Amino acid sequence: MTASPAPAAPIKDVQGGADTRAVFINQVGVRALRLPMMFTEGAAPTPAAGEWACYTDLPESSRGTHMSRLVRVLHDTGEKLNFAEFCKIPEEVLTRLPAATECFVSVKFRAFANKRAPVSGERGYMDFAAAFYAWQKNGRRRNMLSATAPVTSLCPCSKTIAKYGAHNQRSHVSCALETAFPFRLLDVVALIEESSSCELYSVLKRPDERHVTERAYDNPKFVEDIARDLAVAAANQPGVLNYRVTAENFESIHNHSAFAMIESPDFPAALLV
Amino acid sequence: MTASPAPAAPIKDVQGGADTRAVFINQVGVRALRLPMMFTEGAAPTPAAGEWACYTDLPESSRGTHMSRLVRVLHDTGEKLNFAEFCKIPEEVLTRLPAATECFVSVKFRAFANKRAPVSGERGYMDFAAAFYAWQKNGRRRNMLSATAPVTSLCPCSKTIAKYGAHNQRSHVSCALETAFPFRLLDVVALIEESSSCELYSVLKRPDERHVTERAYDNPKFVEDIARDLAVAAANQPGVLNYRVTAENFESIHNHSAFAMIESPDFPAALLV
Amino acid sequence: MTASPAPAAPIKDVQGGADTRAVFINQVGVRALRLPMMFTEGAAPTPAAGEWACYTDLPESSRGTHMSRLVRVLHDTGEKLNFAEFCKIPEEVLTRLPAATECFVSVKFRAFANKRAPVSGERGYMDFAAAFYAWQKNGRRRNMLSATAPVTSLCPCSKTIAKYGAHNQRSHVSCALETAFPFRLLDVVALIEESSSCELYSVLKRPDERHVTERAYDNPKFVEDIARDLAVAAANQPGVLNYRVTAENFESIHNHSAFAMIESPDFPAALLV
Amino acid sequence: MTASPAPAAPIKDVQGGADTRAVFINQVGVRALRLPMMFTEGAAPTPAAGEWACYTDLPESSRGTHMSRLVRVLHDTGEKLNFAEFCKIPEEVLTRLPAATECFVSVKFRAFANKRAPVSGERGYMDFAAAFYAWQKNGRRRNMLSATAPVTSLCPCSKTIAKYGAHNQRSHVSCALETAFPFRLLDVVALIEESSSCELYSVLKRPDERHVTERAYDNPKFVEDIARDLAVAAANQPGVLNYRVTAENFESIHNHSAFAMIESPDFPAALLV
Repeated sequence: MTASPAPAAPIKDVQGGADTRAVFINQVGVRALRLPMMFTEGAAPTPAAGEWACYTDLPESSRGTHMSRLVRVLHDTGEKLNFAEFCKIPEEVLTRLPAATECFVSVKFRAFANKRAPVSGERGYMDFAAAFYAWQKNGRRRNMLSATAPVTSLCPCSKTIAKYGAHNQRSHVSCALETAFPFRLLDVVALIEESSSCELYSVLKRPDERHVTERAYDNPKFVEDIARDLAVAAANQPGVLNYRVTAENFESIHNHSAFAMIESPDFPAALLV
Repeated sequence: MTASPAPAAPIKDVQGGADTRAVFINQVGVRALRLPMMFTEGAAPTPAAGEWACYTDLPESSRGTHMSRLVRVLHDTGEKLNFAEFCKIPEEVLTRLPAATECFVSVKFRAFANKRAPVSGERGYMDFAAAFYAWQKNGRRRNMLSATAPVTSLCPCSKTIAKYGAHNQRSHVSCALETAFPFRLLDVVALIEESSSCELYSVLKRPDERHVTERAYDNPKFVEDIARDLAVAAANQPGVLNYRVTAENFESIHNHSAFAMIESPDFPAALLV
Repeated sequence: MTASPAPAAPIKDVQGGADTRAVFINQVGVRALRLPMMFTEGAAPTPAAGEWACYTDLPESSRGTHMSRLVRVLHDTGEKLNFAEFCKIPEEVLTRLPAATECFVSVKFRAFANKRAPVSGERGYMDFAAAFYAWQKNGRRRNMLSATAPVTSLCPCSKTIAKYGAHNQRSHVSCALETAFPFRLLDVVALIEESSSCELYSVLKRPDERHVTERAYDNPKFVEDIARDLAVAAANQPGVLNYRVTAENFESIHNHSAFAMIESPDFPAALLV
Repeated sequence: MTASPAPAAPIKDVQGGADTRAVFINQVGVRALRLPMMFTEGAAPTPAAGEWACYTDLPESSRGTHMSRLVRVLHDTGEKLNFAEFCKIPEEVLTRLPAATECFVSVKFRAFANKRAPVSGERGYMDFAAAFYAWQKNGRRRNMLSATAPVTSLCPCSKTIAKYGAHNQRSHVSCALETAFPFRLLDVVALIEESSSCELYSVLKRPDERHVTERAYDNPKFVEDIARDLAVAAANQPGVLNYRVTAENFESIHNHSAFAMIESPDFPAALLV
């Protein structure tokens, strides 16, 4: 009904027009893009749904970026993925968008590990929040991988001051590592679990439940203790350039969290924003 | 630029047009509408941000509802609110939309209670997820209020089978009550807290922490126990027509939840969907 | 340190004890259990991370259920999954927990479809929220599958009353079907997309963007229209016993949603709670 | 049953013990602490539920912090709050925890503005995501306030290349300002709304809907345009030391977002992590 003149052929490239505001854009691109992926780190690839973000800078003189090219790159690389392959994406993006000088890409997904219960040996999947980050500018690249694992924390103060028992709870402990060469996500998870009062399992029989109860009680840790032990472990890994570790206890005696964070002096916090 | 004929004055009522598909609509209206409110149940009104949903039915013959009227009613009633005043909203909505025969309204907000720590007496705010629901049709009305409170649960199995300690964790326990007459939200919270291994507090000094640690250890409860004790308490409240209680333990030894639910036979589950 | 008497061997079955409160439990089990899965409906299996819930009833006389058996069943069936296989789970659960008479199970995951852009034919993945539900009691079983797809909605009122343009927005449209025999999830998605002003795509080139812009403008729909068109389509599918359709517009002119819902009279809403 | 020796009186201060790992902790404290508050910026205080985080550093030699003191400070200052009062909190925290040299505090809440519809003048509340941040170390303090407002964005490319119509959608646009002196949150919201294709309203009558439809169509903006116009406006505000602006379009033609970000060179991104 509201007819207007037919657009000229070929279709005008509005984004490609010039811009007169003289404002450089730090990041422009797509986010909240979900793609299926097989995480190919271990012996058996595990299925996942990755949530991606991918940005480049945009020079003062350009009005808009070419978003569909970014989406194309992510589609082409996401189907089978590990950290080493992920780190190649900024190079590919900068090739496809020659006006850009800088690229940031991240993917977040839920990773799984098939674990054995500590006494019965029953197998079951545990899940972890995983993220990969890469940034490249003028040939310089920074790569980071991050895992957040659920663990048990048991309060040393509560154990000491109470006649019996000790409050404990599920905690989320994260470890983000900037690395010089590829690092395995499940090795990051192992560092986290070793720093906790006890690790979690999906399937526990009664002998397992006795074991984890006693293990946590024998191994009380404040949120500060978990962060410190994990920071020491992360700093000692070969190839780790920078690290940031956090521990958040969903306190079973409060409705708020206890939190601690330790990071190396040059940790690239801006990549996490 | 793409000029089209100017619309006739007065502006056409497109929603008011007839519909030929002959399909009755069960619910149509607005949701995710956030409004400031003062919750006026107790001595001191407490501030909150309410998230509202409000729907009516729509007859086969009408194409659309008048959403702005629903928004108007919610704006006019939300500023000072308690459960008794909330329950009057469907009547007001049905007066303003005469074509409707049925109205559903709900509001969800975070409620606060100023509690004293069990030994030191230190004051601090605890927060709870609260919801009110009302439905009216042809003069029949059903009213429901719901609270979800965080509590401590301590596992009886773990306590029994381990040489020392017992896994415990934060749990979310909910109680939804269909009531014949107004009921106080903080009385629902009290029912929940009394059914748990121990209640939570915002500020705890060391003597308080010792107290809650020992209290939980002395009072172990499965998720089934919490649900049963709460169901019995809810059923015994004067004026309660129906109830639904749930307990969800964010297990400190697993990365999944243990869950239990008990409801009375005529509980109106459809109001929660 | 706080040594207590060593537990007797074998380890006591605390959950298996008797209960004297005489309270039947409607649902007890696990939720928020995440497992990797390959969704095997189409030609190419697509990876997913499923989030599971599984409950049975518990008789008055039993104190606790055996949660680890539920977890075991879900682990054993989740790795390759489609709706037909999912529907067999309650039978398996009831075999493993003979005291139970009733079983509810659900899994939620993000499903993907590889779609072609409407003009350029460029391929790209679209993602949808998917859920399967099954309930069984005394040999009676009810099966339900649900999809929620993002679509474009364009407002007929805005188009009519404005000289040019029309507000449009992303909408989430859901369709839950209780079915007599297995139904394909991507067929549910197709019903939803056909009921909208326009469907969405991951990769769009300029000719595609022109197409979807004009398509939506030529096809304006209220939230009521989408719900009605989808309800008619759902009711006409062979094998559909009950349906519930919803449309939620994240209005581009408001900060709240417009919402409509139509359900068949015997739709089992309690399965969704 | 598992009796252990009674604790010595007075109760041991476990957190106050010495630590031998020699690891400095950057941040330790509480998060996800929710408190009621009246936001007192404008003529009429508006109710809110604030979610707080508050951390200090912890020297190498101390094992744990005193979390309950942090909770006490937040309780004592949160009840009536505006940005100027918020900025005093780090000073108070550092007084109460003399071992700390550095303090970070943030509060997030939903703020409301009572707006008039553009033609009819009907009043209604709009809500915005608000956050305050403050950091202090050795007498240096950085203060930041942030608002995220929903707006309409209308795509210039779609408008240009289509014969009629143009895709538009709800967008979330944020503006975080580091300021030399107190700044009003609702003034930040105004900057955001002026940078969009059209602002949103809670109550719109038909003449209002015609107005906002045409206003957006007359004022098409890419996500890049919104970010640039807002960055220029933010940079020109008196007292603004640093800024970070973002625009995220929940594209009505895709299931992912378009995103742009511009920040000043010294923006303290670490405060947002």
